[in-house]
Amino acid sequence: MTEAIDFTLTCPLPIADYPNVLLGHGSGGKLMHTLIEKLIVPTFANPLLETRHDGAVFQVDSSGPCIAFTTDTYVVHPLFFPGGDIGTLAVNGTVNDLAMCGARPLFLSAGFVLEEGLPMETLWRIVQSMQAAANAANVSIVTGDTKVVDKGKGDGIFINTAGVGLVETEGAIGPANVRPGDVILLNGDIGRHGMAIMAVREGLEFESAIESDCAPLAEPVRRLIEGGVEIHCLRDLTRGGLTSALVEIAENANLHLHIRESVVPVRGDVRAACEILGLDPLYVANEGRFIAIVPERDAEKALRLIGPDAVAIGSVDTAHAGIVTGQSSIGTNRVLTMLSGEQLPRIC
Amino acid sequence: MTEAIDFTLTCPLPIADYPNVLLGHGSGGKLMHTLIEKLIVPTFANPLLETRHDGAVFQVDSSGPCIAFTTDTYVVHPLFFPGGDIGTLAVNGTVNDLAMCGARPLFLSAGFVLEEGLPMETLWRIVQSMQAAANAANVSIVTGDTKVVDKGKGDGIFINTAGVGLVETEGAIGPANVRPGDVILLNGDIGRHGMAIMAVREGLEFESAIESDCAPLAEPVRRLIEGGVEIHCLRDLTRGGLTSALVEIAENANLHLHIRESVVPVRGDVRAACEILGLDPLYVANEGRFIAIVPERDAEKALRLIGPDAVAIGSVDTAHAGIVTGQSSIGTNRVLTMLSGEQLPRIC
Repeated sequence: MTEAIDFTLTCPLPIADYPNVLLGHGSGGKLMHTLIEKLIVPTFANPLLETRHDGAVFQVDSSGPCIAFTTDTYVVHPLFFPGGDIGTLAVNGTVNDLAMCGARPLFLSAGFVLEEGLPMETLWRIVQSMQAAANAANVSIVTGDTKVVDKGKGDGIFINTAGVGLVETEGAIGPANVRPGDVILLNGDIGRHGMAIMAVREGLEFESAIESDCAPLAEPVRRLIEGGVEIHCLRDLTRGGLTSALVEIAENANLHLHIRESVVPVRGDVRAACEILGLDPLYVANEGRFIAIVPERDAEKALRLIGPDAVAIGSVDTAHAGIVTGQSSIGTNRVLTMLSGEQLPRIC
Repeated sequence: MTEAIDFTLTCPLPIADYPNVLLGHGSGGKLMHTLIEKLIVPTFANPLLETRHDGAVFQVDSSGPCIAFTTDTYVVHPLFFPGGDIGTLAVNGTVNDLAMCGARPLFLSAGFVLEEGLPMETLWRIVQSMQAAANAANVSIVTGDTKVVDKGKGDGIFINTAGVGLVETEGAIGPANVRPGDVILLNGDIGRHGMAIMAVREGLEFESAIESDCAPLAEPVRRLIEGGVEIHCLRDLTRGGLTSALVEIAENANLHLHIRESVVPVRGDVRAACEILGLDPLYVANEGRFIAIVPERDAEKALRLIGPDAVAIGSVDTAHAGIVTGQSSIGTNRVLTMLSGEQLPRIC
């Protein structure tokens, strides 16, 4: 059957430029964006996929509740890092994707790909971490699968989790609902997850280790919903960091998102580590940070509900369609675009 | 946090015997069974996981419909084989796990782990196959994730799919519902998927290639449900084949399952390939075969509804608790147990 596909005629990616998959195709930047937009989304074409949100929202029958459904595979390297491990990440990452759909996370699946030779103790520790994270996020891991691949054909352990949640918001949440005049809120300091991983990989020593911000985000989202905030869009700031999330939203909403870079919180040790490695914290991955885009009238209340570290970092207007700009501390503006390739491979 | 776990005290697996993960831990046999039963199920302990079915069945709110949720990761090697590829397998395998819950498959997720250097054409062909299989099974791929790992840390492509379906049966389906007097029905000849893969790997040449039986099973299950058959248990015959499925059901139901081996259909070329490789077809993986366990009064109707290749292969009684026996063509009986380790690695 597959023989009948004339690849040279039909593959919509520029094969001459990229005949093979590159690490950058998984980075959350332009390369990944192109791969997904040109090769995957048009093939699997359906309205749910085309919302380009962190998950799909649907009813399984016409009278039933709205359900959110999402998936992520975790290939983080190293498996253990300050503030968490691949197990905590695998639970919190999928819990957070459900929360970003305005859903209460309920049930997770767990699919393991183990490499032959993985120490059983490592698997045991990771499984314990998953359950601890599931308890903290009030979700149950209800179904699973275990595969083993030959030594040298994997890298210790990869974990896929998919999640199902109950959507509790009335209005739709997603890029299409963002409106001019909306305010962009951020729940805390950025860049810690990415720099925690990079510090371990690069052997950087600081006075105290940078810990990942890995955390479940369902509670602050629940407070926003129960507090009656009109939520237009939610997005967690994983691969590609704050900037990539903003660019994706701006492009899909066809609006201009503007942030003041000086009010985006970055801890001193994270900023120092970024400088050593030549990285921009606005692009570094987080695992416990999200933005909420809400009408201006709800912004103050929303900040209070998200928590003490929440800040308003910018706003939405129609000045430029599909563009993100940042104002630096000295008042100059720059256009913020996605990175083209790879900044931090295998960060989640 | 993970530092606090005293592994030596708490890990319930015999670490001295198995300090590292072996290929056999993914084989569908005793090793995998022990890993899941001792290490994973007790950690993630919850009633849904403990049904030990192909998926979890739940309501997301008390008035809503029953939903089935399942996951599988596909690591088959080679990626392309007669009768299908990893893409068709990734869709049909998860569609079938939903069908085995008595559910109508509706929505799938797709999580890709790509190895750096994978030819873009290969990815394109696989994605096309997934969509063709999704069309054939009448499901939509609605959410996804793409990760890339460094060259040498993966094996081309691994695909996880999770699935959500609408449960359309009134009674529960699963090992706990099997009753003495029930009849065991099989929907066709066994062993083709496993031997299609092995023939490619081992370079065996037959007059015509053995094609995988990879196919969606939702339609025959739907016919059983709509035909009013009282379905006690359904199970697809993947890793570990017919025997492992029967043993799992016998153990969980605490009943005796007896089959007549001579009536289990095995094609001549499959039997020949099994003989060359020293394999027992009763243990070889299938991707389009399932057993239905139904009350005797519904057996004739169920056979008709499943289709022309369906056969009654055995029955359930209380003669031995948790045991499977097979009667050979010359009338002798043997106890059928799970294989301890690995017969066919990376078959799905």
